[in-house]
Amino acid sequence: MHFSRVIHILGLLLVFTALAMLLPLPFSYFYGDGDHNAFLISAAVTFLVGYAAYRLAPFDRDLQPREGFAVVTFGWIALSLFGALPFVLSGAIPSFTDAFFETMSGFTTTGASILTDIEALPHGVLFWRSLTHWIGGMGIIVLSLAILPFLGVGGMQLFSAESPGPVVDKLTPRITQTAKILWGVYVLLSVLEAALLMLGGMDLFESLCHTFGTMATGGFSTRNASVGAYSPFIQYVIIFFMILAGTSFALHYRCLRGDWRAFLRSREFLFYLSIIGVTFGVIGAYTIRHYWGDPELAFRATLFQVVSILTTTGYGTADYEQWSWTCQFVLFTLMFVGGCAGSTGGGMKVYRVHLLLKAVFVEITRLIHPRAVVPVRLGGNPVPREVVANVLGFFVLFMLVFFVGVLVMAQLGLDMATSFGAVAASLGNIGPGLGGVGPTDNYHAIPAVGKWFLTLLMLMGRLEIYTVIVLFAPGTWKR
Amino acid sequence: MHFSRVIHILGLLLVFTALAMLLPLPFSYFYGDGDHNAFLISAAVTFLVGYAAYRLAPFDRDLQPREGFAVVTFGWIALSLFGALPFVLSGAIPSFTDAFFETMSGFTTTGASILTDIEALPHGVLFWRSLTHWIGGMGIIVLSLAILPFLGVGGMQLFSAESPGPVVDKLTPRITQTAKILWGVYVLLSVLEAALLMLGGMDLFESLCHTFGTMATGGFSTRNASVGAYSPFIQYVIIFFMILAGTSFALHYRCLRGDWRAFLRSREFLFYLSIIGVTFGVIGAYTIRHYWGDPELAFRATLFQVVSILTTTGYGTADYEQWSWTCQFVLFTLMFVGGCAGSTGGGMKVYRVHLLLKAVFVEITRLIHPRAVVPVRLGGNPVPREVVANVLGFFVLFMLVFFVGVLVMAQLGLDMATSFGAVAASLGNIGPGLGGVGPTDNYHAIPAVGKWFLTLLMLMGRLEIYTVIVLFAPGTWKR
Repeated sequence: MHFSRVIHILGLLLVFTALAMLLPLPFSYFYGDGDHNAFLISAAVTFLVGYAAYRLAPFDRDLQPREGFAVVTFGWIALSLFGALPFVLSGAIPSFTDAFFETMSGFTTTGASILTDIEALPHGVLFWRSLTHWIGGMGIIVLSLAILPFLGVGGMQLFSAESPGPVVDKLTPRITQTAKILWGVYVLLSVLEAALLMLGGMDLFESLCHTFGTMATGGFSTRNASVGAYSPFIQYVIIFFMILAGTSFALHYRCLRGDWRAFLRSREFLFYLSIIGVTFGVIGAYTIRHYWGDPELAFRATLFQVVSILTTTGYGTADYEQWSWTCQFVLFTLMFVGGCAGSTGGGMKVYRVHLLLKAVFVEITRLIHPRAVVPVRLGGNPVPREVVANVLGFFVLFMLVFFVGVLVMAQLGLDMATSFGAVAASLGNIGPGLGGVGPTDNYHAIPAVGKWFLTLLMLMGRLEIYTVIVLFAPGTWKR
Repeated sequence: MHFSRVIHILGLLLVFTALAMLLPLPFSYFYGDGDHNAFLISAAVTFLVGYAAYRLAPFDRDLQPREGFAVVTFGWIALSLFGALPFVLSGAIPSFTDAFFETMSGFTTTGASILTDIEALPHGVLFWRSLTHWIGGMGIIVLSLAILPFLGVGGMQLFSAESPGPVVDKLTPRITQTAKILWGVYVLLSVLEAALLMLGGMDLFESLCHTFGTMATGGFSTRNASVGAYSPFIQYVIIFFMILAGTSFALHYRCLRGDWRAFLRSREFLFYLSIIGVTFGVIGAYTIRHYWGDPELAFRATLFQVVSILTTTGYGTADYEQWSWTCQFVLFTLMFVGGCAGSTGGGMKVYRVHLLLKAVFVEITRLIHPRAVVPVRLGGNPVPREVVANVLGFFVLFMLVFFVGVLVMAQLGLDMATSFGAVAASLGNIGPGLGGVGPTDNYHAIPAVGKWFLTLLMLMGRLEIYTVIVLFAPGTWKR
């Protein structure tokens, strides 16, 4: 591990973060909430530290894989440490623990909050809060489509074939090229959503904040009632863009280049739609009775909650804890599934769940035909054994981290529903969970140790677990 | 699939079951509870049906693997259907649904009960109830050490090397030889336990019933307070024999032949002891305060509950639902682990959990050293890739069945703790779960549909899931 190169890149990330901290300023001045100094000071501090790190630590040659893991993990941590400054300095969130929790929740596009009265916050702070989602989303798209496939994390290499351009040995030019294309798509979809939300009656501030929350599958709102505070039209717009945000951005890129059939060829996308369809049916069978007499409301509330949880956005328009335990259990399971690979969604990812089911069918086939050689196939093509092993290992690791997480939360005194919900919602980057952290509650009552631990889970979930775990292995730190 | 051969063997199994139904008669006559006619009629019916099937269906040649799966699955079902007769005919359990649930729970060595007042039952019926455990345990030992390894189920082939004798193509002579040896060990340990329990003050009836429940890791008691009704000495004896029953009987056989170091060479056995040690420590840290002032009671209650749940026996001496949620969650997790392969214990089995953890470590190593070829090793030997894939697939399947199970139970109106507990305890063949099916409650309040569904889960869990699932695959039924 050569720390110098890692610190060099982290410095560069902080410089960009400092520039991003200037973006809430127009809203600070326009609404006159008096939070502008917090952003100016935070930006100055972040810029100075970042620039010093960038200049003092030389970048002598390309990154090794293990340094790639370190950059990604420490990058998210550094962003969250400095990104918490505006919250603390503006007095919006006085406790640094709480501010760090909120910022990590933002950058990991989780959307779990410790705030009890969102509407009391200055507009600049709320804008920064939502902006952390959007920046995190940008990071994730590049990470999942351009960086992780080369690092060999959890079957992500399956998708290196899907992203544009030829495979090259040197990482940097390829990453830059891919990043530019994907960010273009991300910005385009964001502009489109913001325009539609304004058409639905939101002002520029609200529409940008909710666009950030949607496109990054984050979930921070500017209202205490979340998206429930807005009209059905706005809710349908957000449902549509949540579905897009949970889809691979490589597919969106192909579609924009005229190949809209790419959606139909993607097994993962079709499986993703099937999951939405089936769970909508199961939960709808209950909610049609729950909202008896208002089928449109039942349809909208069910679809919104299913899409919001599956894509790991976490926006809410209904208190699903008032629904039957079957509905809650289905939504709880969706927390583990998550969005498609190459989307901004969290969780285990749709293609992994698809591959897990395929692997089970192959094992059953092998029992009936013991002498046959049956590979796991996805869309007709055999999947390499290493990838299948990698994905199966990821599932075990995910469940293992979930188990340890619940154990820690239980030890901190949380009850069954709350500990299950908080760990699943943090690890899957959803936001709202069950029980004490359900859709009408939030994370302010969790003990401080628990908050720090949950930020670790958010980080692990966001970085496909392996990326973070690798840093705990002694072999990573050898020179 | 040639049904004739399958029916031939099922007939033979029923003939033996009919003979076993005569064993409770001495207790019926001795205690004079008037249940002897129920056994005479049940035995006669079972014998006639079995003998007819045995004689009318010809056995022309050896079984194919797919017929092996059918024999095993339908064998357990047939035994439970006819084994329920004494309960119904004696009037002890008038409902056939309940009687079938109790019998399947017995033969699968689960120990889940629908009886609310056990002590009110005739002695002959109680003896038959416990005897179903012991018979089921005999079946499982042979199944896991002699039949499943050849059928290639879920990594069981790892253990074909451990059982005595050379590998031969023709299954039958090998199975017969292995079965005789292992049953000898089973009978020997049972005699030893029964003698020790009588030494502790139990009469012959009680000692035999509890020996059956222990050696088969079943859990049916003759007392409403389960093993909590007996002295500390008896509880320690039962703890010791539960640990033995959760260990591979191939290891016991080697030990009896003088090679006691076989225990120390078995990675699975050492890992099994480690799990007991670690969970005892975690739960003990709480119970030492819960039973403040009585460290011996804290030690005994903790060890008993840990061993009882891990080995999937399900006997109880304390109401663990009074303990902290951490303790309950650890015990809940143990339900998924289960005993060692080749033991009478259920669950996923210790070696699978061990292998899952190893597989995860290998994946992490591969990320750090992308070019290295790292096999999964167990005790220094590389494990074949097919076996690793098989075990990983088993884990996915186990979690999948658990998910579907909870969904069904939720739909029947059970709450969170009860549905989680009932499904985990049935699939893992434990018996007591959480909530409404916790250690102080039982399964009588579950709706009838739920009872039938749980018997299916017991069967699937007991037969390593694959064995039952294979029968649902269309390929199995082709001629």
